[in-house]
Amino acid sequence: MSEYPLAALASSPNRTPSQVSVGSDLYGRFQIGEGTVTVMAGPCSVEGRDMLLETAHAVRASGAVMLRGGAFKPRSSPYAFRGLGQEGLDLLAEARASSGLPIVTEVVDARQLESVVAVADMLQVGARNMQNFALLAALGEVNRPVLLKRGLSATLKELLLAAEYIMAHGNTNVVLCERGIRTFETATRNTLDLSAVPVLKLETHLPVIVDPSHAAGRADIIAPLAAAAIAAGADGLLVEVHPDPKSALSDGPQSLTPSQFDALMAAIAPIAALTGRTLTRPSCLRGAGAVAAPSRQAAARHASSTAVPA
Amino acid sequence: MSEYPLAALASSPNRTPSQVSVGSDLYGRFQIGEGTVTVMAGPCSVEGRDMLLETAHAVRASGAVMLRGGAFKPRSSPYAFRGLGQEGLDLLAEARASSGLPIVTEVVDARQLESVVAVADMLQVGARNMQNFALLAALGEVNRPVLLKRGLSATLKELLLAAEYIMAHGNTNVVLCERGIRTFETATRNTLDLSAVPVLKLETHLPVIVDPSHAAGRADIIAPLAAAAIAAGADGLLVEVHPDPKSALSDGPQSLTPSQFDALMAAIAPIAALTGRTLTRPSCLRGAGAVAAPSRQAAARHASSTAVPA
Amino acid sequence: MSEYPLAALASSPNRTPSQVSVGSDLYGRFQIGEGTVTVMAGPCSVEGRDMLLETAHAVRASGAVMLRGGAFKPRSSPYAFRGLGQEGLDLLAEARASSGLPIVTEVVDARQLESVVAVADMLQVGARNMQNFALLAALGEVNRPVLLKRGLSATLKELLLAAEYIMAHGNTNVVLCERGIRTFETATRNTLDLSAVPVLKLETHLPVIVDPSHAAGRADIIAPLAAAAIAAGADGLLVEVHPDPKSALSDGPQSLTPSQFDALMAAIAPIAALTGRTLTRPSCLRGAGAVAAPSRQAAARHASSTAVPA
Amino acid sequence: MSEYPLAALASSPNRTPSQVSVGSDLYGRFQIGEGTVTVMAGPCSVEGRDMLLETAHAVRASGAVMLRGGAFKPRSSPYAFRGLGQEGLDLLAEARASSGLPIVTEVVDARQLESVVAVADMLQVGARNMQNFALLAALGEVNRPVLLKRGLSATLKELLLAAEYIMAHGNTNVVLCERGIRTFETATRNTLDLSAVPVLKLETHLPVIVDPSHAAGRADIIAPLAAAAIAAGADGLLVEVHPDPKSALSDGPQSLTPSQFDALMAAIAPIAALTGRTLTRPSCLRGAGAVAAPSRQAAARHASSTAVPA
Repeated sequence: MSEYPLAALASSPNRTPSQVSVGSDLYGRFQIGEGTVTVMAGPCSVEGRDMLLETAHAVRASGAVMLRGGAFKPRSSPYAFRGLGQEGLDLLAEARASSGLPIVTEVVDARQLESVVAVADMLQVGARNMQNFALLAALGEVNRPVLLKRGLSATLKELLLAAEYIMAHGNTNVVLCERGIRTFETATRNTLDLSAVPVLKLETHLPVIVDPSHAAGRADIIAPLAAAAIAAGADGLLVEVHPDPKSALSDGPQSLTPSQFDALMAAIAPIAALTGRTLTRPSCLRGAGAVAAPSRQAAARHASSTAVPA
Repeated sequence: MSEYPLAALASSPNRTPSQVSVGSDLYGRFQIGEGTVTVMAGPCSVEGRDMLLETAHAVRASGAVMLRGGAFKPRSSPYAFRGLGQEGLDLLAEARASSGLPIVTEVVDARQLESVVAVADMLQVGARNMQNFALLAALGEVNRPVLLKRGLSATLKELLLAAEYIMAHGNTNVVLCERGIRTFETATRNTLDLSAVPVLKLETHLPVIVDPSHAAGRADIIAPLAAAAIAAGADGLLVEVHPDPKSALSDGPQSLTPSQFDALMAAIAPIAALTGRTLTRPSCLRGAGAVAAPSRQAAARHASSTAVPA
Repeated sequence: MSEYPLAALASSPNRTPSQVSVGSDLYGRFQIGEGTVTVMAGPCSVEGRDMLLETAHAVRASGAVMLRGGAFKPRSSPYAFRGLGQEGLDLLAEARASSGLPIVTEVVDARQLESVVAVADMLQVGARNMQNFALLAALGEVNRPVLLKRGLSATLKELLLAAEYIMAHGNTNVVLCERGIRTFETATRNTLDLSAVPVLKLETHLPVIVDPSHAAGRADIIAPLAAAAIAAGADGLLVEVHPDPKSALSDGPQSLTPSQFDALMAAIAPIAALTGRTLTRPSCLRGAGAVAAPSRQAAARHASSTAVPA
Repeated sequence: MSEYPLAALASSPNRTPSQVSVGSDLYGRFQIGEGTVTVMAGPCSVEGRDMLLETAHAVRASGAVMLRGGAFKPRSSPYAFRGLGQEGLDLLAEARASSGLPIVTEVVDARQLESVVAVADMLQVGARNMQNFALLAALGEVNRPVLLKRGLSATLKELLLAAEYIMAHGNTNVVLCERGIRTFETATRNTLDLSAVPVLKLETHLPVIVDPSHAAGRADIIAPLAAAAIAAGADGLLVEVHPDPKSALSDGPQSLTPSQFDALMAAIAPIAALTGRTLTRPSCLRGAGAVAAPSRQAAARHASSTAVPA
């Protein structure tokens, strides 16, 4: 029997890949997985209202269907900018209401889970927390899909076991994310391991996306890595975009400008098409320009309907 | 200015190494750091009462001054034995009362902190949680020394920044632990990086100990690695000992028998002496045979006097 | 000034990538580099006449323009099959005469250079010899393009410096090859570092190709890695193909069957086209079916015209 | 059966470690291996006559029994100082005649073997050539002990297989050398893997020495690493010493001054004694002050008696 019976491809009916549903009735839903390519984009950290709204509308215009942005940031140094916290969450909620884009944001502490779940459509586990088993267990009890990033030196087997933790605790909506591993090479921040994509596809039914930004650590090679990820079969991308990378409080050197991101989107669509897949488009979502921004009450209902189960 | 102003050697008066006090009034105290060598030993996991008491008395007889043992175990698989939890903590308390050895045990979740602090004399942060910044921050507010293990692929700078997290939140009693890093070599579970010892000694005033057991992953080379660690200047060792390694529920292949541990202790004492250091001996502690086991009330007072600050 | 003044992109007129000419008047020539995608394929080792000729014709039929095959094989063990040596070279010459495909084969010893040059159209430096500086210097004095593979743990800077060795000794016709680096991951034999492609393209004017076979060490993920390499901008591929991988004397698990290779070629052509590049086709070559096999004399002239300079 | 039948410990009579004889009738002989600790020291490169003689006499005075020094230097860049070549060999011969210390020096090309053998008492294979199988095979046919350094990312199994190459070609006098492996850590040039010592001792009968200089890449931690290596059971050390490290043409940052080296020697002798071993002392050698320098004819006889067999 498999070491990860819930995550194993063999455990899926007819060995078919599964799809993970993201979004909400309010803003629209879509599926991550087989047959589609999903792009999530946004700043590393939520730094303020203007930059976040500007980025949200820009990445939506280019074709992203989810907005990423960190309110709680794990940083190596206690003296670095660690995010706006609750204020960041509030800004993400506003950005969703304004742009219609569902939110993916990181959770770094099980004790924050309730407040993050009130805002986020998808919960991200960062590389440094991939084996924070207490957090994984807590995420297993939450009604939100989880984006699980590979640890800096985690084997693919360990990544699958980390997904299994979440699934074994009750939440089977897990999307895996390759984001580079630590090696001796210094030309890049990490070494993007694109072999992970086809290897994982042979092992698990869970969707697999790629984060070229954290892997590269430099903006000038992200577009070719994104193209390579899609060609390798990735189900989507997670890309850092900032309206002014030079002024970013974190990860500036690896952030694309909106126009660089637009070029990236134009380049990957035909590669997805070559393999019979389509990019999930924002047209599946409701949002600014499409529908009126939801009322305060509707937003409150959205939050309460998805709170952490008691 | 240093990136880790609290941990930096330069921030210590006269650039002298600091010492970290461990133990309690009830069972006795000693210092970890300059001039001494401290050995902590015990099983990977607390598996039951008999094995724990047997190990505690055996390692004390050989010269260990702290008992290690996991009640909450981080394991790669959700289906592996993850420790006895609260029952394990109770057994550790009993083992301390019986042997007089202070306890070092791992904390994996900030929400468990109060119950672990009630029993533990020193709190261990495991390699997989070295960058669990929420946990580090919580440990900064606790009145217990912390044993911080290096992450599987953490640089020494990142280890120092993780210590700085704890210190910046108020707890300056941190001991660093080298336990092997992940490399391509498969003859050992990890690669013990003994360069870490002299490098850290040049960078920080915090004590540095070495865990040869997790580095090697095999019992047959632990004694020479322990000797090498002391020769390299380590302030102590953390060694896995099990009365019957073959039957261990975790880490059996790397656990020493009590007699192998006894031989290890005999080998390292003269190496410590060569560098003008002495092994901290159990005679500094009170315990079974030396004093009567403390009453239930005294043990309760011990726990309440050291609880997590509100 | 650059550490590799000859290899640096900045040293190329108008910072344009250079092209490396491969082939001969007898069998036809083509360029490796900008605007084209070149595929080299064949068995790891030349094992015998039939398997070599069968593979040569098969890979040509699928669109490969060079035949790879080792006559001198570096193997970790002295007891493993180390190639047929001179007999292997003779078979490669016959395969070229029969198929019209130029030959790329490894040279492992400067003392063999003359005999290898007599047969090979391109000389391969294996990963284990990337810093065999005596060999690199010798290759600098030879009138043949060199395929330089990245060492198992070589940084990209070291790869460029190794190319600079060859160029500084007089031979500027160097093609770089990413073939995976050694990491902790065990799901693949090595970790293919596709970031190498765009990073090298920013640093050097030399063409860059990718060997997914040695990187993966397993046949089942080679097609997606090949597609990813082309999407990342690689100027070509080096792929192991064997008529019966299960019976291969070396590298069987990573060898494609001819029909798997045919599918790979069909998949990469449109990816090349998306980026405005065309696959170099065997129609640019003369060979079996196109021209009569060259006479023994013509073959002898071919060899002597390209011998190692005195 | 073992993959390295000649190198395996099991193949030694009574599973006893073997000893490798070094030196010559002219200058004296000693054994490397079980029961002794052998220290080789000297500059990275032979830079000139004065510095070499000064270093030779200094390291002999401190207790080294072999002089190291490179005449042919493998360097990552073709523009770096690559050694004095034949002039360097001549200076090494003079240093031996003057100090009485046998010479260990690197050979980087099988075509140089005859001239290096004419001077060297022991032939070093550098890390970058550990899998230069043509060179290993050539060394198998030479009447000189070989010092085989572990490759930058070689597994211990690959190191043993490289030794097996030399042995399978006829030369069983091989000494293994751990010199650090490549990892993500940047505080040191490489990561010294001292686990290699006890692991190799369990696998092979060949002596194992340690080079802390190349591992550390910095002088300030070499003494503790040297002590650790001896405590781990190493049969000797290879240490870089330079009369004026700041002016060194290569590896200055990791070179000890003669007085630092003297302190290192004083520190390791008692550690060797603790494990029942003795440092091989220069008193076993003849040399300056002990015997008159050998005549030109004697030196010529020395060279010819040990030339490469036809």
